[in-house]
Amino acid sequence: MTTSQLVEQIHLKQSFLCIGLDTDLKKIPVHLLEKQDPIFSFNKAIIDATHHLCVAYKPNTAFYEAYGIAGWKALQRTIGYLNENHPEIFTIADAKRGDIGNTSTRYAKAFFEDLQFDSITVAPYMGKDSVEPFLAFTDKHTILLALTSNDGAYDFQTKLIGGKELYKHVLETSKSYKNSENLMYVIGATKAEYLLEIRKIVPDSFLLVPGVGAQGGSLEEVCKYGINENIGLLINSSRGIIYASEGKDFAHAAASKAGALQNQMALVLKQMK
Amino acid sequence: MTTSQLVEQIHLKQSFLCIGLDTDLKKIPVHLLEKQDPIFSFNKAIIDATHHLCVAYKPNTAFYEAYGIAGWKALQRTIGYLNENHPEIFTIADAKRGDIGNTSTRYAKAFFEDLQFDSITVAPYMGKDSVEPFLAFTDKHTILLALTSNDGAYDFQTKLIGGKELYKHVLETSKSYKNSENLMYVIGATKAEYLLEIRKIVPDSFLLVPGVGAQGGSLEEVCKYGINENIGLLINSSRGIIYASEGKDFAHAAASKAGALQNQMALVLKQMK
Repeated sequence: MTTSQLVEQIHLKQSFLCIGLDTDLKKIPVHLLEKQDPIFSFNKAIIDATHHLCVAYKPNTAFYEAYGIAGWKALQRTIGYLNENHPEIFTIADAKRGDIGNTSTRYAKAFFEDLQFDSITVAPYMGKDSVEPFLAFTDKHTILLALTSNDGAYDFQTKLIGGKELYKHVLETSKSYKNSENLMYVIGATKAEYLLEIRKIVPDSFLLVPGVGAQGGSLEEVCKYGINENIGLLINSSRGIIYASEGKDFAHAAASKAGALQNQMALVLKQMK
Repeated sequence: MTTSQLVEQIHLKQSFLCIGLDTDLKKIPVHLLEKQDPIFSFNKAIIDATHHLCVAYKPNTAFYEAYGIAGWKALQRTIGYLNENHPEIFTIADAKRGDIGNTSTRYAKAFFEDLQFDSITVAPYMGKDSVEPFLAFTDKHTILLALTSNDGAYDFQTKLIGGKELYKHVLETSKSYKNSENLMYVIGATKAEYLLEIRKIVPDSFLLVPGVGAQGGSLEEVCKYGINENIGLLINSSRGIIYASEGKDFAHAAASKAGALQNQMALVLKQMK
C-alpha cells in the first residue's frame, strides 16, 4: 500500500485512526472464551464493527506470542482476514524488531512476505544496517521508534548528544538510509509538544502516534503540532477502544469509542480546508 | 538457572561457548529437507553433537518467525528438547524485544513461561519501564543490548552524551533497574578493545559476546579484556559452527569447530589458575 493510497483513505473515511489489536484473553468478554479461537473471534468482531471508522489496524505481536502457536495462528488469521476483506486498510505489525543485517532480513520476510503486513515497527538502537533490510522491501513501510510514549523514553531518547536529543539524531540519521522515503516514525502522544521540533526534521513523514486515551495523550495537541499537508498522522488507540465494554456489546462499544475519535478527526480535517 | 550454576558448568566443561542456532533452510544440508521438521532435525543433530562442548544455546527468533507456524513449532521443540535432555545448559532467546510495560510483560511471559527459556535479549531504547518487566521474573536473566557487533553500532551507541558514550549510559542506568542483579549484556566481539572500559562499569556481570568467527571478532582479545573472576563471558558463535559443512557430516563438522573453540577456552581457563 502506497502513502498516497493511505492519504486517499484518510480523506475518504475522514479518519486517521489506527486501532491497536492488543488482544488479551484476560480482558476480552468471557463468552468468547468458549469459541475455538477466542483471539481471532474477538479481533474479527472488532474489525467488523470498526473498519469504516479507521484507516489502520495494529496488532502488537507480544500479545500473540504470549499464547505460543495458538497466538501466532490467531495473528495469521487476523492479518489474513484484514487483507482479504479490507485490503484498503493499512496494517502495522507492532513488533519493534531490529537485529544485525541478515537477521533483520529474516524478520522482514516474516512480517512482509509470510504474514503480508504493510508495515512493521523497528527499534533503532542497532543503527543503519539493522534498519535497511526492512527498507529493502520497497512496497512496504518501516516505522522507526523515535520518541516513545512511556516514561522510559526519558532514560535515553531525550538525552543530549552534541546539544541535540538522541531521538532527533535517530530522525536525522535515518533520513540518509537507503529507501528512507518508506520510513514512518513512532512519536508518543504523551509528548505532543515535541512535535513542533520533530516536524522541522521530518516535515513530510507519516507519524504513528500511540498514547492517546489510556496513556493520557491529547488528540487536539497532537493534531495542532503534528499535522501536515498530507495529514501525516496515524493516531493509535488500543485499550481505550477494544476494551470499552466487557459484555456482549463489546464490539458495539468499541465502535462507539472509535466513532467518537473519528468524529473529532473529521472536524480537524474540515478545519484544514 | 542461577549465575553460580552457570559458572559451575563453565568450570566443569572448561568452556564458555554459546552456540547460536540461527537455522536457515537455505543453508542446512539438503538431505534434511525431506524430514518432517527439517529445522528441528538440524538443531537436534547439532545439539546432540555439541552439547558437551558448550554451556549455552541461543536460537535467534528471527530465523524461526520467518517460517511462521512451522518455525514457531520448531523453536518450541528445540527449547523443549534442550530443557528435557540438557537442563544444565543455559538457554537464550535472542529476540531483542522491548516495549512499554504491559507489553514487555507479554513478551516475558512468551519466552520465560510459555517457552521456558532461561534468558532473553532485550533492546534498551525504550528505557527502564520496558526492561523491568523482564527483570520481574527473578529466576530468569535479561540480556540487554549495550554495544553490538555490527557497523550500525556506531550510528547511536557510541555517540557521546555528556562526554560518555550512549552504551555506557545504558550500562550505568540499567544498574539502577529493579532486580538488576539478573542483567547480562550484549557486547560485540568486533569491539573487544571497548571491554576494558566496560568492565569498569559492570565488573561482575556476564557478557554475551557475539561476533567471534564469521563477523571477525577475536577470542583472545575478548578474553584478555573481558574475563573476570567468574569468567563472566559467554562467547557466541553461530554460522561459524553450525554451517561448518553442507554435507551429511554437518553435525560432526560443527562439533569439530565447537571443539576447537572449547580447546582455546580451556587454555584460557588454565592460564587463570
